Amino acid sequence: MTVAATRSEHDLLGDRDVPADAYWGVHTLRATENFPITGATISAYPHLVDALAAVKEAAALANEELGLLAPEKAAAIVAACREIREGRLHDQFVVDVIQGGAGTSTNMNANEVVANRALELMGHEKGQYQYLHPNEDVNLGQSTNDVYPTAVKIATVFAVRGLLKAMAVLQDSFGRKAVEFRSVLKMGRTQLQDAVPMTLGQEFSAYAVMIDEDRNRLDEAVQLIHEINLGATAIGTGLNAPAGYAESARRHLAEITGLPLVTAANLVEATQDCGAFVQMSGVLKRIAVKLSKSCNDLRLLSSGPRAGLGEINLPPVQAGSSIMPGKVNPVIPEVVNQVAFEVIGNDVTITMAAEAGQLQLNAFEPIILHSLSESITHLRAACLTLADRCVDGITANTEALRATVENSIGLVTALNPHIGYTAATDIAKEALVSGRGVAELVLEKGLLPAERLADLLRPEVLAGSGAPQV
Amino acid sequence: MTVAATRSEHDLLGDRDVPADAYWGVHTLRATENFPITGATISAYPHLVDALAAVKEAAALANEELGLLAPEKAAAIVAACREIREGRLHDQFVVDVIQGGAGTSTNMNANEVVANRALELMGHEKGQYQYLHPNEDVNLGQSTNDVYPTAVKIATVFAVRGLLKAMAVLQDSFGRKAVEFRSVLKMGRTQLQDAVPMTLGQEFSAYAVMIDEDRNRLDEAVQLIHEINLGATAIGTGLNAPAGYAESARRHLAEITGLPLVTAANLVEATQDCGAFVQMSGVLKRIAVKLSKSCNDLRLLSSGPRAGLGEINLPPVQAGSSIMPGKVNPVIPEVVNQVAFEVIGNDVTITMAAEAGQLQLNAFEPIILHSLSESITHLRAACLTLADRCVDGITANTEALRATVENSIGLVTALNPHIGYTAATDIAKEALVSGRGVAELVLEKGLLPAERLADLLRPEVLAGSGAPQV
Amino acid sequence: MTVAATRSEHDLLGDRDVPADAYWGVHTLRATENFPITGATISAYPHLVDALAAVKEAAALANEELGLLAPEKAAAIVAACREIREGRLHDQFVVDVIQGGAGTSTNMNANEVVANRALELMGHEKGQYQYLHPNEDVNLGQSTNDVYPTAVKIATVFAVRGLLKAMAVLQDSFGRKAVEFRSVLKMGRTQLQDAVPMTLGQEFSAYAVMIDEDRNRLDEAVQLIHEINLGATAIGTGLNAPAGYAESARRHLAEITGLPLVTAANLVEATQDCGAFVQMSGVLKRIAVKLSKSCNDLRLLSSGPRAGLGEINLPPVQAGSSIMPGKVNPVIPEVVNQVAFEVIGNDVTITMAAEAGQLQLNAFEPIILHSLSESITHLRAACLTLADRCVDGITANTEALRATVENSIGLVTALNPHIGYTAATDIAKEALVSGRGVAELVLEKGLLPAERLADLLRPEVLAGSGAPQV
Amino acid sequence: MTVAATRSEHDLLGDRDVPADAYWGVHTLRATENFPITGATISAYPHLVDALAAVKEAAALANEELGLLAPEKAAAIVAACREIREGRLHDQFVVDVIQGGAGTSTNMNANEVVANRALELMGHEKGQYQYLHPNEDVNLGQSTNDVYPTAVKIATVFAVRGLLKAMAVLQDSFGRKAVEFRSVLKMGRTQLQDAVPMTLGQEFSAYAVMIDEDRNRLDEAVQLIHEINLGATAIGTGLNAPAGYAESARRHLAEITGLPLVTAANLVEATQDCGAFVQMSGVLKRIAVKLSKSCNDLRLLSSGPRAGLGEINLPPVQAGSSIMPGKVNPVIPEVVNQVAFEVIGNDVTITMAAEAGQLQLNAFEPIILHSLSESITHLRAACLTLADRCVDGITANTEALRATVENSIGLVTALNPHIGYTAATDIAKEALVSGRGVAELVLEKGLLPAERLADLLRPEVLAGSGAPQV
Repeated sequence: MTVAATRSEHDLLGDRDVPADAYWGVHTLRATENFPITGATISAYPHLVDALAAVKEAAALANEELGLLAPEKAAAIVAACREIREGRLHDQFVVDVIQGGAGTSTNMNANEVVANRALELMGHEKGQYQYLHPNEDVNLGQSTNDVYPTAVKIATVFAVRGLLKAMAVLQDSFGRKAVEFRSVLKMGRTQLQDAVPMTLGQEFSAYAVMIDEDRNRLDEAVQLIHEINLGATAIGTGLNAPAGYAESARRHLAEITGLPLVTAANLVEATQDCGAFVQMSGVLKRIAVKLSKSCNDLRLLSSGPRAGLGEINLPPVQAGSSIMPGKVNPVIPEVVNQVAFEVIGNDVTITMAAEAGQLQLNAFEPIILHSLSESITHLRAACLTLADRCVDGITANTEALRATVENSIGLVTALNPHIGYTAATDIAKEALVSGRGVAELVLEKGLLPAERLADLLRPEVLAGSGAPQV
Repeated sequence: MTVAATRSEHDLLGDRDVPADAYWGVHTLRATENFPITGATISAYPHLVDALAAVKEAAALANEELGLLAPEKAAAIVAACREIREGRLHDQFVVDVIQGGAGTSTNMNANEVVANRALELMGHEKGQYQYLHPNEDVNLGQSTNDVYPTAVKIATVFAVRGLLKAMAVLQDSFGRKAVEFRSVLKMGRTQLQDAVPMTLGQEFSAYAVMIDEDRNRLDEAVQLIHEINLGATAIGTGLNAPAGYAESARRHLAEITGLPLVTAANLVEATQDCGAFVQMSGVLKRIAVKLSKSCNDLRLLSSGPRAGLGEINLPPVQAGSSIMPGKVNPVIPEVVNQVAFEVIGNDVTITMAAEAGQLQLNAFEPIILHSLSESITHLRAACLTLADRCVDGITANTEALRATVENSIGLVTALNPHIGYTAATDIAKEALVSGRGVAELVLEKGLLPAERLADLLRPEVLAGSGAPQV
Repeated sequence: MTVAATRSEHDLLGDRDVPADAYWGVHTLRATENFPITGATISAYPHLVDALAAVKEAAALANEELGLLAPEKAAAIVAACREIREGRLHDQFVVDVIQGGAGTSTNMNANEVVANRALELMGHEKGQYQYLHPNEDVNLGQSTNDVYPTAVKIATVFAVRGLLKAMAVLQDSFGRKAVEFRSVLKMGRTQLQDAVPMTLGQEFSAYAVMIDEDRNRLDEAVQLIHEINLGATAIGTGLNAPAGYAESARRHLAEITGLPLVTAANLVEATQDCGAFVQMSGVLKRIAVKLSKSCNDLRLLSSGPRAGLGEINLPPVQAGSSIMPGKVNPVIPEVVNQVAFEVIGNDVTITMAAEAGQLQLNAFEPIILHSLSESITHLRAACLTLADRCVDGITANTEALRATVENSIGLVTALNPHIGYTAATDIAKEALVSGRGVAELVLEKGLLPAERLADLLRPEVLAGSGAPQV
Repeated sequence: MTVAATRSEHDLLGDRDVPADAYWGVHTLRATENFPITGATISAYPHLVDALAAVKEAAALANEELGLLAPEKAAAIVAACREIREGRLHDQFVVDVIQGGAGTSTNMNANEVVANRALELMGHEKGQYQYLHPNEDVNLGQSTNDVYPTAVKIATVFAVRGLLKAMAVLQDSFGRKAVEFRSVLKMGRTQLQDAVPMTLGQEFSAYAVMIDEDRNRLDEAVQLIHEINLGATAIGTGLNAPAGYAESARRHLAEITGLPLVTAANLVEATQDCGAFVQMSGVLKRIAVKLSKSCNDLRLLSSGPRAGLGEINLPPVQAGSSIMPGKVNPVIPEVVNQVAFEVIGNDVTITMAAEAGQLQLNAFEPIILHSLSESITHLRAACLTLADRCVDGITANTEALRATVENSIGLVTALNPHIGYTAATDIAKEALVSGRGVAELVLEKGLLPAERLADLLRPEVLAGSGAPQV
């Protein structure tokens, strides 16, 4: 006796054979044929798969509670969803991540996998939908248009949590360096021109504070993602979702995920609106901008070793060149810059996708999911790599830094209140042309007594408190 | 006796003649020669000019309070600043809005105008800087690097207030239409395909709610703009700003502007960080995205008059075509779309400018100011025009809309829970092919009794409560 | 006797164990540890791997020709490269596609794989670099800074060829429909308002012509990619590349790849310049814009089935909804729209990466490669899917289309030259208000004799020649 | 006797009073009320106003030629158009540049101004349209949908010519410096790390070559702009434009403008397609990217004066700081960077506007015109300012530059072919740790004889030919 290699399934367009051992069915099959775009399936988005299973489980529990789904069906669906959330069956989520249909193929992939696994758990065979149906049971009271955005939001919340942790790690790295370098005096620069003295600790504390602020903004943005539209069904009118369903499903989903989810007040609006994703992407872009700026600085400050600024040393993590022996390059900041550029580009993609929504739905949420997910996970990896393989190992060229301060023309700024901007300008000009020191010229011209001058040019005075403000 | 047409002024680079009646001086002169880019001077940004005057006034008061500035000098500076804030002397702000130098030319333009007007008020002539100096008195304790960002923030806050009001006006317009159309039944659409019934009131309430949410986001973003770095001086170390100056200047500035300003905790960070502007621009982009989507819908719903959807009528505001008689086009939504595209492009400009900051300063704030200001003021104009010249006059083609519902195949969705997804699919297919009605086919096949069917297809049931959720 | 599971390798930073069976070595190992960003290795970019092998082969031949590389070493390198180009060893290209170091890790990955395979072919063991060295032999006369850009360009040329073919397929699909629909009269629309008559064939011919123009632009842009900088070595001065090397390597590379490659006239410029990639991405963006516009149209024209424009029918390729029975959605155009949004976002990423280049090199070419490659391959897939699963199966609702023309007010435009714009405007107004037909009103008012009127309103006249201009 | 201050005009929407002395009429009046967006009128786009007049003139001549327009009307229209092209009446072009309606208001503004001036020339009064009508005579055979894109293209061609000249000026500036600095030896850098020697002349020649390439690309892109759709009328079918009109109008327009204009082969396609504008903007973005990169380099190379790279000196053009005496900042490169960011943002705006076109027309060309025009004119100003106020005055710190070469570790790269990559790596490591020189260590270890070493390290060898390749 041989086992049939395929089973036949039926949909609106007719009959198709699917592999007998596949948990997915005819809808998924057609989607894989229709969208051969990236080769990356949604199984590569484990947060999304888990979130879909959570939604299906919550819906089943709500439907059972409302007497719409038989307890044994509900139990089987719940059990199947839990298996998925435990990481099993992820390989059955085979539709391409970039897909038409507003996520319908993703939702149907989930409906089919849950249904077929639940059928097995009930003692039936895959495909025996007369006992438990992907649409009529698993998708009961639901529409792609509320399931998919809800799942994307939950997946985003979990992904963002990972990013927030990684940002905290990086902030700590910068913060520790701020303390370590709190007494390292150096010239501050504006517009790449020597300005006035500061400490390297102050410089690094700024990087730490930037990340701290960005974490706050990200935390605010992720709160907005907790508003879901489950219960909206097709367009937000809640057609086919009975009274009490939305609230019950939300409550179960909040329990399953541990997230303080709330149902949007206006479900018609919530079903067509991608504003929270645009906002989230905007904040990710903000993080990217700041991270890129900090990495630009690290690369600049470590330029050299002999014909650059040479203020700090990044830890060497690989040979820098296939041709130039001994060259060590700032490869870690460079890879972070590139992630930042990617995130900024993704923001434009998300913006266009959001703008293209029409009437009661935005059909382009799959690319929003894809771009958002990429931005979050790559930023997370970038933060961790930057902290671990670069910032933690940075050292300072303390002596050389102090020398540039002592030799600087910018010192004259500190004398402004004492000799005036105009006289200070003359000193600066003469110092520049002659190559001589500011203090020397001030003394020579008798503009200030030596003791007073020395007092005014003390490092602690020059760099403010000198202590980093973390 | 003739009056000299020019006066001579001196700076780092030498002597130059400026017009005798100009309140600006040599620094401004050089800037106008260096930056002949847009032809638009900062006088076209009245919020910025007023904000600069407010900062100069606050600084003078703080300096006086700390005993650093003679009372008569302070009084003259304060008086000059008030004249500027009353709208006088705006024409003296002649540097190009896009300029190198991180805003130094804008700050020096302000210093010179304030100094020369103050000199006049003190009974001196313009240019007699020995009595009151642009740098040593008006700019005392300040740097472009704290003055300019602080002024840009204050200007942005006032501009955003105008936008928030305009958004409220537009929200009200949509809200009133939501009420007016609360009983107008129509087909909802997803992916441009007929979906399930709703009311036109629900559709318009979604537009109103979107704006309401965006107002909340904008309000949050503008809070972040209240954090200033006045007192940071050149790089945030506060060099040349005595103890107490930052707090005193902030207090005076808060009083003058009426804004709850706070001084950043880490001034080194605050002086180099453009995050709040990036965030603000990101929220403006979000607003643009939603506004554009709503206008796309309005244009689509009013398409026709005979070969389009023809659901609503936009009020005609001008003849639509130079060749097609009687044509009326959706010109108001179209202009709003274009503003949205501009705002989205500006966001990229701002993003790049913010990312390009180096070390202790971002030298590119002038383009950030320009782009942000353009986005805010154009969005404001767009909202008001859209409300006044379009939304307020929209009417609905109520009868035609109801007919499409009664004729629709989407009705069958409401029968899902009663006849099942599979049977409903068969009905839908047959209706499509035969051109017949769903109800007719359900009755013919005996799937539901007539009375039950009529009850299920009642408009109030179909469109949820039918009442718009504003 | 057991085989050691690892071998030890040495670099600038010290010794590391690599798996004994790995063709890659210590440089690759460190890179995999340094760049855990995307999880996608360069093996997923087969065009790039093949191009790297081609460059290494060409360099070896040039070096042999110049007497710098022993014939047996050259032969082994060439043989190893050919194996790679035949598709073997691709799995050994394990560094992450997004990497710091300007592609050094990719180049070193290639050097190591080629060296170790060549060693085997020479009868040695992997890692016995004393016989053939990744840097000193495989990379002889080369630098990452000429190898990597050259390989990226060759990879891009081959990828673009695939896209050009796919665009031709799509153009043909649209072209066939243009012919098929050449007699289908319909209303043209401007600004979504009914304008004047045309044929559906004209509409589809426009889509075909757009693609044809874009193909021409893409073909021009790809020509610029044929300019390489091989022989530039580190910064374009050609240090370590002997006289004749650049020309010899170019000649061999042209032979190996079959491409008419040229060496840049100014190698210093060519080594730092990413202009050709920016141009290429700009053209890809142009293609995306046009493709997205065409898909927007297809979705709009097929809207319905009963409450939309309903002009054409897209072939159903999957069930459209998990809740709405019988719904069929325009999923293929939707997925193409999303690819377009991705390409447009990628263009911003590439722009930022190109702008961030500094001095003699752009360190960010890896993200340029990644984004460019993604744009090209996804556009290719999108074109093929759109042609095969959508355009080829489109049908027209001919009768309904003709009825809208006969019923239209836009007909009156054709009467402008005969009754004047002012009189025509009055007719249009009355037609709109009364719901009556234009012809009827013209006759009633005696503005034109019936026969003349009928002649003026003949379809062929109205739609120009009626024949599509392909 | 008093002169009436207004005259009454009539359109589709009714009667309105316009100022008696206004050349514009009721359509313009309504447009100014409908689009109070930017405050910038189209009179600020003189190339556009001239181009509109040229189109109107060409159309009148064609219509006269075809016997459709009386010679005296044609003569008056032609005369009025010439006055406009001579710069008169520009102040009558008062509609806002950002407008809905696909340019209809701009076209009607032109029709009305031309008509009223022509009426005066014919001895009539403004508003006596019974003698010459804005729509029926001035706009005869035309539609906004062919007039506006044609005028925008002609305006763009003239604006681009100005940019091309400015780029040539800047290229020459860089080229002269390349020659001047041809013997200045310096360290080249990759990834901001010291690489191998080159000359400053080579560095500047790269900037010159980049601009040269960009000029070629811009020249190619502007060729595509010479394809016009005049004769297409509303949607490209040529309705109301008699046989021969398109060709006659094109011929006259080519004569008037002196441009080799061609009529698009497929007018339906040409009327809806914004591809040539997207391409143009893409090339402008490319130029911006390269210009920004060059300015980044100039700012970096001139960093200092004491704590920076200090390789070159930019000419001081204004005092750099309001607080730091003697500070001189790279304000000219900074303003160019900002223009570049603006151009890159404008490209996104243009991209979105182009993508948003629907069916037979793109309604968003006004924002495309605005953004494109801004990009071109600002880039032009930026190039001229950069050449004149910065590049021309750059000087080199020749001695210091040579010292960094002699002191560099990168020298060791030149010894690779002679001592091997592995030995060279050891030398580099030791030099870095010990602070000693490469040559010294090589000699000490006896790796090369002194004479041979000196020969290998000769500047001409190190920097290639040393001569800039312009």
